[in-house]
Amino acid sequence: MAPNKYKTAVLIGAGNLAFHLGQALFAKGIKIMQVFSRTETSAKPLADILNATFTTNLDNIIPDADYYIICVKDDAITEVVKAMPAVSGIVMHTSGSIEISVLQKFAKAAVFYPLQTFSKSKANVDFELVPICIEANSSETLTELKKLASLISSNVQEADSAQRKTIHLAAVFACNFSNHLFSISADLLAEQNLDFSLLLPLIEETFSKIKKVSPAEAQTGPAKRKDFITINKQLELLKDQPELANIYSMFSEGILKKQK
Amino acid sequence: MAPNKYKTAVLIGAGNLAFHLGQALFAKGIKIMQVFSRTETSAKPLADILNATFTTNLDNIIPDADYYIICVKDDAITEVVKAMPAVSGIVMHTSGSIEISVLQKFAKAAVFYPLQTFSKSKANVDFELVPICIEANSSETLTELKKLASLISSNVQEADSAQRKTIHLAAVFACNFSNHLFSISADLLAEQNLDFSLLLPLIEETFSKIKKVSPAEAQTGPAKRKDFITINKQLELLKDQPELANIYSMFSEGILKKQK
Repeated sequence: MAPNKYKTAVLIGAGNLAFHLGQALFAKGIKIMQVFSRTETSAKPLADILNATFTTNLDNIIPDADYYIICVKDDAITEVVKAMPAVSGIVMHTSGSIEISVLQKFAKAAVFYPLQTFSKSKANVDFELVPICIEANSSETLTELKKLASLISSNVQEADSAQRKTIHLAAVFACNFSNHLFSISADLLAEQNLDFSLLLPLIEETFSKIKKVSPAEAQTGPAKRKDFITINKQLELLKDQPELANIYSMFSEGILKKQK
Repeated sequence: MAPNKYKTAVLIGAGNLAFHLGQALFAKGIKIMQVFSRTETSAKPLADILNATFTTNLDNIIPDADYYIICVKDDAITEVVKAMPAVSGIVMHTSGSIEISVLQKFAKAAVFYPLQTFSKSKANVDFELVPICIEANSSETLTELKKLASLISSNVQEADSAQRKTIHLAAVFACNFSNHLFSISADLLAEQNLDFSLLLPLIEETFSKIKKVSPAEAQTGPAKRKDFITINKQLELLKDQPELANIYSMFSEGILKKQK
């Protein structure tokens, strides 16, 4: 542990999440000691912002920080863990789909999973409302992790690895797949020289509803109304686009089935 | 035409759309003369709100209104048109998927399609930002319709029947099907005793992005990152839910394909 009263952290990774999380923690008084990334090009700019040193070699990682925050892609976590020295601070990864057991070589292992998407183009992410799902290999570590997460978010929740995997899966359905539906809509409209912005008020209303009632209650549309005439007409419009027709049928059946 | 300077309208139907559209037009000085619905139970309350008379018989419809606004379900439009007397005012339907030609018995035929979902539980719908897609069988009628729509919305767009059908189809993908994805997410979370509200900040961010960049540019997630390890893990989580696994595969393939 650092002798000072402020807590210290090392960021492993310099991508979107490290960029935003590093700044949010820095702003709350966590001293970012060091940023690791495989290339200087990515490590140095973030280190400079955070007033930290940087390294491109995991052997050179500062050994006595309070927190080691692994913000690398899921498929790089195992490799990073293997290359890291056996530090005594809390080592946490930030992934929705990776079990805490991947960190078993460390005495204090944890998961710090912020449920949000990040892009560097967005200047500042306000973590205040971002749910942060935490897990730890001991109650002491969990308590300390809760303190860390509560510095930046008012929505800190415990979630074990099984729950976290489900949260990540649910997020893929609710966000990534919804966005793909928006993308399909944009393509359909473009074929008729219409702009996607036409749909924004309707999408806004769709989103506004699920803040008040459950998605099942908020469901509308031809399938919900059992309006088979419209369903068949819309399938006819998609006759040259079998993949879209397939999605249309599956979703309409799914919505019909939910009502039973 | 009514001799007075104010324009007059008859509402055919007393459902959610008639309820909100009637009030919005009434508030802008359109005199709602009459509300038709098949039952007094549905016709009278709306007529009372709008200071209008009501009828449950299409034979008794006031013959000299400026506008006849058909707000019935798609599959009832043909029947209503057949039963209506051949009035001289503008007769418009409000459906996304029905051609204007269904109104050919009327001299002045039009479509007035507000691109929004409506529920009676919502007290007041602000039409100001709701896109209203209009079509008419003559340029004079189109001009008059544009005036009518512009009373309540600043987003009035001409769209022919082919375009309108595509808009409706795109809205089903972007809104009704997205909502079904939210519903699937809520079910997945409930299986792990987790609440859907956990996802709201992430959904809000997803929606916020597409106001700034195209949905294709806004796409994130395992498929976008070509993170096949996560894709396979998530499919494994869905091994007992083949319908969801099917959606997962189709959407992941769709997102991968879009990048090529």
